[in-house]
Amino acid sequence: MKLGVCYYPEHWPRTLWAEDARRMHAMGIRVVRIAEFAWSRIEPEPGVFDWAWLDEAVETLHAAGLGVVMCTPTATPPKWLHDRMPDMVAVDLQGRPRGFGSRRHYCFSHAGYRAESRRISRAVAERYGRHPAVVAWQTDNEYGCHDTVLSLSEAARQGFRRWLAERHTTIDALNAAWGTVFWSQVYRSFDEIDLPALTVTEAHPAHRLDWRRFASSEVRAFNREQVEILREHSPGRPVSHNFMGFFTEFDHHEVAADLDIATWDSYPLGFTQMFFLTPEEKTRWARTGHPDIPGFHHDLYRGLCRDAQGQGRWWVMEQQPGPVNWAHWNPVPEDGMVRLWSWQAFAHGAEVVSYFRWRQAPFAQEQMHTGLLRPDSSEDQGAAEAAQVGAELAALGLDDRGPVRLAVQAPVAMVVDYAALWMLQIQPQGADFNPLELLFRAYEGLRGLGLDVDLVPADADLSGYRLIVLAAQPQISPALQAALEAAATRGAQIVLGPRAGSKSEHLSFPAGDSPTGHGLPPGPLSALAGVQVQRSASLPPGCAEPVVIGGQTVQVRRWREDLAPAEGTEVLARFADGRAALTRRGPVRYLAGWLDADGWQALLAEAAGEAGLAAAPLPEGLRLSRAGHLLLAFNFSDRCLDAPALPTAAPLLGQRPLPPRGLAIWRT
Amino acid sequence: MKLGVCYYPEHWPRTLWAEDARRMHAMGIRVVRIAEFAWSRIEPEPGVFDWAWLDEAVETLHAAGLGVVMCTPTATPPKWLHDRMPDMVAVDLQGRPRGFGSRRHYCFSHAGYRAESRRISRAVAERYGRHPAVVAWQTDNEYGCHDTVLSLSEAARQGFRRWLAERHTTIDALNAAWGTVFWSQVYRSFDEIDLPALTVTEAHPAHRLDWRRFASSEVRAFNREQVEILREHSPGRPVSHNFMGFFTEFDHHEVAADLDIATWDSYPLGFTQMFFLTPEEKTRWARTGHPDIPGFHHDLYRGLCRDAQGQGRWWVMEQQPGPVNWAHWNPVPEDGMVRLWSWQAFAHGAEVVSYFRWRQAPFAQEQMHTGLLRPDSSEDQGAAEAAQVGAELAALGLDDRGPVRLAVQAPVAMVVDYAALWMLQIQPQGADFNPLELLFRAYEGLRGLGLDVDLVPADADLSGYRLIVLAAQPQISPALQAALEAAATRGAQIVLGPRAGSKSEHLSFPAGDSPTGHGLPPGPLSALAGVQVQRSASLPPGCAEPVVIGGQTVQVRRWREDLAPAEGTEVLARFADGRAALTRRGPVRYLAGWLDADGWQALLAEAAGEAGLAAAPLPEGLRLSRAGHLLLAFNFSDRCLDAPALPTAAPLLGQRPLPPRGLAIWRT
Amino acid sequence: MKLGVCYYPEHWPRTLWAEDARRMHAMGIRVVRIAEFAWSRIEPEPGVFDWAWLDEAVETLHAAGLGVVMCTPTATPPKWLHDRMPDMVAVDLQGRPRGFGSRRHYCFSHAGYRAESRRISRAVAERYGRHPAVVAWQTDNEYGCHDTVLSLSEAARQGFRRWLAERHTTIDALNAAWGTVFWSQVYRSFDEIDLPALTVTEAHPAHRLDWRRFASSEVRAFNREQVEILREHSPGRPVSHNFMGFFTEFDHHEVAADLDIATWDSYPLGFTQMFFLTPEEKTRWARTGHPDIPGFHHDLYRGLCRDAQGQGRWWVMEQQPGPVNWAHWNPVPEDGMVRLWSWQAFAHGAEVVSYFRWRQAPFAQEQMHTGLLRPDSSEDQGAAEAAQVGAELAALGLDDRGPVRLAVQAPVAMVVDYAALWMLQIQPQGADFNPLELLFRAYEGLRGLGLDVDLVPADADLSGYRLIVLAAQPQISPALQAALEAAATRGAQIVLGPRAGSKSEHLSFPAGDSPTGHGLPPGPLSALAGVQVQRSASLPPGCAEPVVIGGQTVQVRRWREDLAPAEGTEVLARFADGRAALTRRGPVRYLAGWLDADGWQALLAEAAGEAGLAAAPLPEGLRLSRAGHLLLAFNFSDRCLDAPALPTAAPLLGQRPLPPRGLAIWRT
Ligand SMILES: [Zn+2]
Ligand SMILES: [Zn+2]
Ligand SMILES: [Zn+2]
Repeated sequence: MKLGVCYYPEHWPRTLWAEDARRMHAMGIRVVRIAEFAWSRIEPEPGVFDWAWLDEAVETLHAAGLGVVMCTPTATPPKWLHDRMPDMVAVDLQGRPRGFGSRRHYCFSHAGYRAESRRISRAVAERYGRHPAVVAWQTDNEYGCHDTVLSLSEAARQGFRRWLAERHTTIDALNAAWGTVFWSQVYRSFDEIDLPALTVTEAHPAHRLDWRRFASSEVRAFNREQVEILREHSPGRPVSHNFMGFFTEFDHHEVAADLDIATWDSYPLGFTQMFFLTPEEKTRWARTGHPDIPGFHHDLYRGLCRDAQGQGRWWVMEQQPGPVNWAHWNPVPEDGMVRLWSWQAFAHGAEVVSYFRWRQAPFAQEQMHTGLLRPDSSEDQGAAEAAQVGAELAALGLDDRGPVRLAVQAPVAMVVDYAALWMLQIQPQGADFNPLELLFRAYEGLRGLGLDVDLVPADADLSGYRLIVLAAQPQISPALQAALEAAATRGAQIVLGPRAGSKSEHLSFPAGDSPTGHGLPPGPLSALAGVQVQRSASLPPGCAEPVVIGGQTVQVRRWREDLAPAEGTEVLARFADGRAALTRRGPVRYLAGWLDADGWQALLAEAAGEAGLAAAPLPEGLRLSRAGHLLLAFNFSDRCLDAPALPTAAPLLGQRPLPPRGLAIWRT
Repeated sequence: MKLGVCYYPEHWPRTLWAEDARRMHAMGIRVVRIAEFAWSRIEPEPGVFDWAWLDEAVETLHAAGLGVVMCTPTATPPKWLHDRMPDMVAVDLQGRPRGFGSRRHYCFSHAGYRAESRRISRAVAERYGRHPAVVAWQTDNEYGCHDTVLSLSEAARQGFRRWLAERHTTIDALNAAWGTVFWSQVYRSFDEIDLPALTVTEAHPAHRLDWRRFASSEVRAFNREQVEILREHSPGRPVSHNFMGFFTEFDHHEVAADLDIATWDSYPLGFTQMFFLTPEEKTRWARTGHPDIPGFHHDLYRGLCRDAQGQGRWWVMEQQPGPVNWAHWNPVPEDGMVRLWSWQAFAHGAEVVSYFRWRQAPFAQEQMHTGLLRPDSSEDQGAAEAAQVGAELAALGLDDRGPVRLAVQAPVAMVVDYAALWMLQIQPQGADFNPLELLFRAYEGLRGLGLDVDLVPADADLSGYRLIVLAAQPQISPALQAALEAAATRGAQIVLGPRAGSKSEHLSFPAGDSPTGHGLPPGPLSALAGVQVQRSASLPPGCAEPVVIGGQTVQVRRWREDLAPAEGTEVLARFADGRAALTRRGPVRYLAGWLDADGWQALLAEAAGEAGLAAAPLPEGLRLSRAGHLLLAFNFSDRCLDAPALPTAAPLLGQRPLPPRGLAIWRT
Repeated sequence: MKLGVCYYPEHWPRTLWAEDARRMHAMGIRVVRIAEFAWSRIEPEPGVFDWAWLDEAVETLHAAGLGVVMCTPTATPPKWLHDRMPDMVAVDLQGRPRGFGSRRHYCFSHAGYRAESRRISRAVAERYGRHPAVVAWQTDNEYGCHDTVLSLSEAARQGFRRWLAERHTTIDALNAAWGTVFWSQVYRSFDEIDLPALTVTEAHPAHRLDWRRFASSEVRAFNREQVEILREHSPGRPVSHNFMGFFTEFDHHEVAADLDIATWDSYPLGFTQMFFLTPEEKTRWARTGHPDIPGFHHDLYRGLCRDAQGQGRWWVMEQQPGPVNWAHWNPVPEDGMVRLWSWQAFAHGAEVVSYFRWRQAPFAQEQMHTGLLRPDSSEDQGAAEAAQVGAELAALGLDDRGPVRLAVQAPVAMVVDYAALWMLQIQPQGADFNPLELLFRAYEGLRGLGLDVDLVPADADLSGYRLIVLAAQPQISPALQAALEAAATRGAQIVLGPRAGSKSEHLSFPAGDSPTGHGLPPGPLSALAGVQVQRSASLPPGCAEPVVIGGQTVQVRRWREDLAPAEGTEVLARFADGRAALTRRGPVRYLAGWLDADGWQALLAEAAGEAGLAAAPLPEGLRLSRAGHLLLAFNFSDRCLDAPALPTAAPLLGQRPLPPRGLAIWRT
């Protein structure tokens, strides 16, 4: 467990660097990420490199005992490059080329920029690949930020056609797979196919789904090219990329397959304001962030890069240190939250928690984004809390032993599948059916019961889990079907959310042995779940329907299905019209509607109980994590909190009950 | 009275067709619409036709005793055609060409596409024009859907200039008619005139109004070209087109003047969610649809194509059979609604009610749009209810006697004038002044009193009506003025809504004999109504004003006028400041503000009473229709309903009181 | 004090002109503005001028004893000019050229149009410059209306590069000033710099700020070219321009520096509906306008053009006479409001109040905008009230003595600085941080205490003021710093709002003597205010924080700061967490959050008291103004109002208590 920080030596006088490095180390920081936006300083003129400043920065950090995470600077190509290749930019969904003057002004499909990306990556890798200070690499920065994955460029159009030809082999196969006979959308050759945007009304869903797959594959290819260069020139150093929050623009599992370490950028307050939370939640958690936003992503990104022992390797590369600048509103974290978030990340298995950024920039776009230091170099609240974490890690002897292995396989697996999210985003069928929120609400239900959770891909090995949740999984591959059947056979509890098994891989109805060759949802899971979905409704805002789950009345909102339970399928909850809302067949539950977190918690409490897991509702704002031999508890609320699940023994750190924004650690 | 269905043989294996046809007939279906999106199957390569499959489909249906409504497939030209003429598409109001990949990707003004439209129409007409299975034709599909009537294409620009030259003859006449002296908008030739879009601030209202007239005329011309070809090659078969709901993009009276039958596509739940209803109404009627949405359109489209006896010929070409896919939310109809809607259409005079679609498509854009059958060919709820209607028609002997003639001329006429709607859309003067809603609320007031209504064009023969309502009619032509004066003379009650007579045909103030040559509203109706409008206000949301009408306090919202009543004009209701809200001069009422349905009902109850019409408020959700010798009652609510207006005699069908979603039919 | 009117002879038959002029004069009108949109009548064909009609119009007005304000007609170039130079138009922020067909269809940076502007201005100036009827000039009309100042045209791009080169001298200086090292935005030459729009994410703030400065300078240059021509050809006549309400598109102080008289267009009801007021305020003031909207702009525009005696010369060029057409909702003013607004303008020092427009146009875009007369030439309510004002002016002997000098320097100065507003608009940091509203709320607080206020530029002479308010002033120039220090030394009370001194002129953190060279807010004011801002938060909607100011609990919303008060700085109010919300050091107050009007009033009451100013809360809707030897009171409410601050002596006009919408004038 180590602390890190993001540092921009190019923003500051060289005279400050050594003192900065000294202060970092004194604060407990051991890792420093640099240079991800420094292209114009590294190569100020085409082909003219200035390494001196960066050499000196690396040496200075190294001399202070700090390891360097070096970056490829491809997220911000210089203006001279943009002027040489004006068509290198992504084209937005309105058809407008996206200009220079901020960042990420490139299209993943542009061959010319891809060559430049390799050229500059090679230059940096050759220069620093074997430098002793360099402990890891980061490719680019926040792939896909600012909606740059889907591009209407000519390069993307041509690339898409090639990708389709490769995937579908023949145009007849594509026509059949997509169902282009509908509305005379039949194609005679791959060269007839455009990007599915700016159509008169909605574009074909299978067309859109393949576009998203293609665009994701372009991100993967872009990244892999850099990884290969870095591996060649910097053997032994892990390669990482920093992913983002609530982000589904590309398949993170696929991109991460080429990486050694997954990192992500954790901004709990910004995410709380910017995403799907209710107005009440945005107010309630304005200064702490929703407790499950960090955990959800920690558990998600832990599942991306597994080492030889199957341990997920992941970092927080950017940890919010104070108010940020980019949300609609940017409140100040409550005192103690920077420490709490840092420990929360370690509790979920982070190797490194790295703060963004060392010192607040006094100029440019992010000048209102705080750092550990203020622009005048004085210490902000974040610095004090980072130093406290550093001291606590040292006091507990957790600071100094290489990558730690705190996280264990959790008893609960929840599937997060990017293609599944794309399908339901393309075809929500109700304006508020957000599949990512559905996953989050199920996760929140699990965490509110004190359960540890692995978020796993659809092709994960499910053999070790006692409770498996598929909250938003329309497509069930044969392998996943088999894994679920095996899990059910061995008695694992399985919970299927609404629309499970409702789609084929081409976003049509699942196959079936009816006269038409099609079946009804849940398709391949029909036998396992013992139900058939006869009709689906998206429920307008005023049309919630109450159901009783586990003795508790909760609301089904947004979505409900009319089920036909098979003989022998038990009905656990019913809608007011008598139809089944929740069924069980053996260890398999099927949920026929959208639930909020409270509904999921009621449902999952019963399933967890049957899985033999201790699962009791925690007070609002309390969260537990088991990490190796440690149990950690976190209080996100503004009240003192206690719970029966907490050990009675004296903690290694903290106390019971937990004070507001407090944490406690026990050995177990 | 016949049932029909929309069928897509090209979506299904040929092996299914015969069984499909058999099941249709068994369900009571007699008419099948096909091929409106089948161009790429009919002509897979340019000039290469494949008739075999369509021949077989037609024969199969024919053999099962089903009549075919054949369509021209022009709503979905194939990709190869788009690639040959990339400028054939409409250009949207942001200036972007609208791409291939959905439907309606053509501009009505494009000469090249117009030639293609004639070519393919002729090909289909020649092939099937005299086929015994073909009982009717449909041109294209849902003209103007997805905002394709107004196009910023070069073809439209040139066409608009030609149209203006023809309409205005000289540029000086245009300048005078529009009032281009304002803001130096004077033109020196027709070639200087652009389409009135993307201007710095709002474009000239007369310019915009003529643009809408032009665009409407292009739809008419496009349609007429097809009609002429169909008439030539398919003598004796009526030609229809399927119109849409709450749709004002073109003048339906003008387009329908070239047709034999008007049809429309009735989706009560989708329309309830997508249009101007209040949030409370969207919740209240989520699963039944607002009761007056179908009726309003039935009565509107009944007024489009009158046969030699003056009887309106119309069908429902697409009847919602279950949840749809295209509204913001798509709830499931309550059980019984598909039957209720079907009978409601027959009660308003429909010859055919045709369900959309036979079987839910398992793929493509509409896969979440239900049909009578599910994708696996099992029967959905809609199938059961359609079969019930078929059986009921047969039991009542209504099924089998050619086009029936149930509808009588109603005692009430309400004017629906597309140019009037355009005027008030162009110049709402208050953000919530929606003239279509104003019409709807007046209609709702009439229907809530149990009155049958004819919705008629502004040039209709008004001589038979006892109550005439002009709820939203700024332009009063000399003919309309004369018709109203004649009606008043014979004692018909006339109700004028706000802004009546407030505009000339060029969307300026009406002419008058003042020194300026202009007068005040209601312009040509001033003498008849005995009022002058001195000022108008659009009322911000919080500024409703109560008035008492018929003993009932109702709210004037959105709009009010300051009237100067002439000597002898009676003031029936006053605003709080004492000014007149509702006046009467002889049989002519003038209403100086916006009323919701309750206000209109109070006003119209009195007017109807004076017209000698029985008009008593019905319970919420109950609707009555008189059709020939039948009286039909419909209960849209979830309670048992009764009303004094219902006959005491035993009904032919159903019972009194009416159960929720029930209907009853009496002979009268 | 004179009345005026806007007149469009070109809209009406010549036969009406003499009678119009006679009626104007009889109504008390003495000044008539004409011809600002008449280019296409003046020059119907390129180079072909038709002066006859305008000569006659001028003569007719002159003969009736009316002075003429002649205009350059450049706001509406004719279509023939647009067709000759299609690229003369501004390009909007989506990249679309803005078409012909309304007004203001030109780009301020287009050299070709600039030449045309000079050509037509010279032609008009030569024709009428020395005509005895012409008493003043107006350049163009409402510069910048409809968002035309910021243009993405190629002309603007080239002009911006030249402007940057001139301002920054070297590209290195620009890179340093902006901080382009951030995100590799470094430029190698001025020719690499684009307009900061359509970037991938937000463009660089310093880049955007310089763009706004450039765009503003283009407006100034455009205007100055006309002014120079008018001055040359029309010696002795003052030149004016009519500015707008709540408008920050350009620096009005700079543009006005080239004018003799500032005028503005006052539409209280339209502005109430269209700007930042709460829904409750929009309803409360729907028919009177918010009382401080006219006053705020009167005081603002009085500060623009000072004559040799330092007296601000300003008019209302367009006064709302009744409902307008352009707001989302357009209610009718309460009876008496046209009179009240007219007197309110005189009370703030207006030389002329000119109604827009004489007669309502029966055609074109503004046909629903009322005038003093209706389209049929009958008198509307506005005419009666204008005539009343004319009679009252005459009765009080105020009508006939040339420009009057009623206004005195106010005891209170509030700084309005356009660059300051741009900075906070570019970097709001919270979605609802509207700096213009912040200024307005502070102004409202002052006016609610009965204080007269001068709104002054940041470089104003502050030496005469007893209370100085900087409600929204991030940038503190050395001169302003010195002026504030001098004011504090002489004991003037100073109130600094949140974010005061938080930015440098290049929109970065202020300079400081820290190791980085940067300091914390309030930067140059830190010593004076005795505080340092350690952190800032934008507060989400639900997160208001109560503080007690002057014994009154008010809410801090939207924004709060964490202050470190220096030794000896007094804390006047604290947040719940104990941190300072309001401090005082000597006569200098610092406010660490956003206050609404009630909070500002509580704060300013205390500061005014210490400044020795009589300041007591007035009842809601009552406003006072001192003007020379007169005290005027205005009642915007619908109740009779009285206040201790009103004189007991009998007024010259009106009575005490004031009736609803009444006014009273006392000699003092
Ligand atoms: Zn980002
Ligand atoms: Zn449609
Ligand atoms: Zn304007």
